[in-house]
Amino acid sequence: MRLTTLLLLALSALLAATASAQERPPNIVVILADDLGYGDLGVYGHPTIQTPRLDRMGAEGMKFTQFYAAASVCTPSRAALMTGRLPIRSGLTRVLFPHSTVGMPAEEITIAEALRQRGYATAAIGKWHLGHLPQFLPTKHGFDSYFGIPYSNDMDRVGGPEGRAAFREPRFEYWNVPLMRDTQIVERPADQRTITRRYTEEAVRFIREHRDQPFFLYLAHNLPHVPLFASDRFLGSSARGLYGDVVQEIDWSVGQVLDVLRELDLEERTLVFFTSDNGPWLAYDDHGGSAGLLRDGKGTTWEGGMRVPAIAWWPGTVPAGTVRTQVTSNLDIFPTALALAGGELPRDRIIDGRSLLPLLRGESKAEVREFFPYYRNDELYAARVGPWKAHFITRDLAGGATDPVEHEIPKLYNLDVDPSEKYNVAEDHPEVIAKIRRAVEEFRTR
Amino acid sequence: MRLTTLLLLALSALLAATASAQERPPNIVVILADDLGYGDLGVYGHPTIQTPRLDRMGAEGMKFTQFYAAASVCTPSRAALMTGRLPIRSGLTRVLFPHSTVGMPAEEITIAEALRQRGYATAAIGKWHLGHLPQFLPTKHGFDSYFGIPYSNDMDRVGGPEGRAAFREPRFEYWNVPLMRDTQIVERPADQRTITRRYTEEAVRFIREHRDQPFFLYLAHNLPHVPLFASDRFLGSSARGLYGDVVQEIDWSVGQVLDVLRELDLEERTLVFFTSDNGPWLAYDDHGGSAGLLRDGKGTTWEGGMRVPAIAWWPGTVPAGTVRTQVTSNLDIFPTALALAGGELPRDRIIDGRSLLPLLRGESKAEVREFFPYYRNDELYAARVGPWKAHFITRDLAGGATDPVEHEIPKLYNLDVDPSEKYNVAEDHPEVIAKIRRAVEEFRTR
Repeated sequence: MRLTTLLLLALSALLAATASAQERPPNIVVILADDLGYGDLGVYGHPTIQTPRLDRMGAEGMKFTQFYAAASVCTPSRAALMTGRLPIRSGLTRVLFPHSTVGMPAEEITIAEALRQRGYATAAIGKWHLGHLPQFLPTKHGFDSYFGIPYSNDMDRVGGPEGRAAFREPRFEYWNVPLMRDTQIVERPADQRTITRRYTEEAVRFIREHRDQPFFLYLAHNLPHVPLFASDRFLGSSARGLYGDVVQEIDWSVGQVLDVLRELDLEERTLVFFTSDNGPWLAYDDHGGSAGLLRDGKGTTWEGGMRVPAIAWWPGTVPAGTVRTQVTSNLDIFPTALALAGGELPRDRIIDGRSLLPLLRGESKAEVREFFPYYRNDELYAARVGPWKAHFITRDLAGGATDPVEHEIPKLYNLDVDPSEKYNVAEDHPEVIAKIRRAVEEFRTR
Repeated sequence: MRLTTLLLLALSALLAATASAQERPPNIVVILADDLGYGDLGVYGHPTIQTPRLDRMGAEGMKFTQFYAAASVCTPSRAALMTGRLPIRSGLTRVLFPHSTVGMPAEEITIAEALRQRGYATAAIGKWHLGHLPQFLPTKHGFDSYFGIPYSNDMDRVGGPEGRAAFREPRFEYWNVPLMRDTQIVERPADQRTITRRYTEEAVRFIREHRDQPFFLYLAHNLPHVPLFASDRFLGSSARGLYGDVVQEIDWSVGQVLDVLRELDLEERTLVFFTSDNGPWLAYDDHGGSAGLLRDGKGTTWEGGMRVPAIAWWPGTVPAGTVRTQVTSNLDIFPTALALAGGELPRDRIIDGRSLLPLLRGESKAEVREFFPYYRNDELYAARVGPWKAHFITRDLAGGATDPVEHEIPKLYNLDVDPSEKYNVAEDHPEVIAKIRRAVEEFRTR
């Protein structure tokens, strides 16, 4: 972060502290699953993966049905979540690898930085994937502590059968990924069989230790990204197979977090937000998830790649059993967190997200996002205006094609009517395509 | 019904009445939607059709995720529901038309007949489709009264643009379908714009009038089968378009039924069961529904054709917020109703269904169905044993093929792991195919 920005944040924190010294801002817990698809939870219609805790979280909270990750792969999606800015702003538009030498730029303001300035205790537990070199780690970006695997659990491959066979019956030793505490590697290869359990225990411990002050917990599971691992207790627990076992352990984990919040009487002062970083990785057959009724998956700008499950829970504030169809995004988590903490959005940069607070509070007049851009890397593949989505470029991974195809006449879908992107109505609505093109131009010159 | 059967039923009714004179059996309400797909309700993951009442019914009740209609089209599915027997038993294996001269055979015992014998008031409201000639009407098959359109709402076509164009902007006058009260036609063409509302008003009136005795209400909506119609109040109410408007009116209707039960203090003595007759009719583009993550739709033996939404609600008896993955079927409604009414299953015929009562009561040891046959007309296209489904014949309507294709090596899917029927594993599991073939043989010689 730049010095001026830090000073501004410090000043606004001071002002806020004076104005409402007695009012403690709410805690914020963001739980992120990795490659979990739109259709993988009971509350989103999966028939055999049993997710009673997430289903109940939905029944007690708010389910979003048009919530988008800002990218269809890990790094850019997480960069967006953490900063409220599109990946093209931070430059983190592509997946990082163990040989990558870049990461979260120092100038970016993360949720953790913004909240720590306002007196929050902050912890990152789990997958980071915004740079694993020392200067990019969570503890350099506003988190008091970090415990986790700093990138994807399928990296640092060192053994096992050739190609994808290793994923069919994975052994954690095939992937030499490091497990870090703060800036130190404490285990390598990380024993992924117990990783979800250990992340959960860390999370519960953090909550207990910081019960008396506002806290921000970012719990980013490495799973159900392939290779799949589950604790003994969950192995074989699901009719859906190993993928289901893994999701069911994450469901248990969510339950542990909600339970400790209730136990500590913190449930009415904590917003818990559950989501996924992008859609399911369909190339791994039944080791990948399901996008439900949505088309295609991870790595594409079809809905299945970017629309993800999202559930907000905050008893007493978020109305129970509500479903929201507004176009929302993981870009919105940063501004929502700032709004909750009583902070102001930075004014020296573009913030692409907007606060979900009016929606979360059940305000019927909550503003609706009109425009949403679908990026792959730094290229705009598609754009949504209202219910309409125009694809300028597509990549049909589910159809077996890996090369992008450019469309002179964009493919056009009405997502409210046709969420599965089955009926291209471009010929009937040239005026809508023109409108979307104008909106894209306007967006680009913002 | 045969005289001996009637006598047996009367005798068992007498015995039951003596045994528990003071114990009034519960009311039973079956609400059936027409062509509603597995993915069309919020509680099954639809993003833009808003079904708050059905969602809440699921949260307060039990959601089934592997519930099958016994056929993928109207008439045989309804015959199965009404008798607990596969359509091949009654001979009602094909869709009936206005020129059809057959219908529900007199020898069949319907739920209404069985329950009326046990003192239930019985009403059929809505679509019948088990014969429209006098001897086949509901009032000849155990219902005290009938109000509805006796077959599909797209029959008796008399006007409008050619082919499917009439369905795009339907006017009710294009279909000269009759609306009947008991055995008389009271309106023709039936004004379908208000049909869901009028069915609902009839249903609420029936419940009010029979609050003091056990009752069986069969409320079978004609919609969301094409052509689509909704009341003024619901037209334009859904972002999903006309199809969504129609489903949202049915959701309202369900709410009306549940509300009057609560108002009359009957909610703890009434089982309400909501389901659909078969999967979505995909040939009508956005005027047809969605099977969610399931493959294909109506008219096929893929999961999307036969697996349907199903929600049971009975506060105090059915545990709230439960999800059941057991293989269940609309064949089970007849035996469940008999079990609730304290009746015995007829012994002079094969009953293919089994009582859901143990499941509904939340008994963890509830018996699981091992075998399920998928028929098209009178031909067995596929069979399920445990999680495994073998397709001997398929029909890829969604893929544009209408002719059935016979498979020398059946296509094999593990539905628990692969509910979307994407990964044919026949080559890896010849032993499973052999097992399914044996189960089919055994089933056929029962």
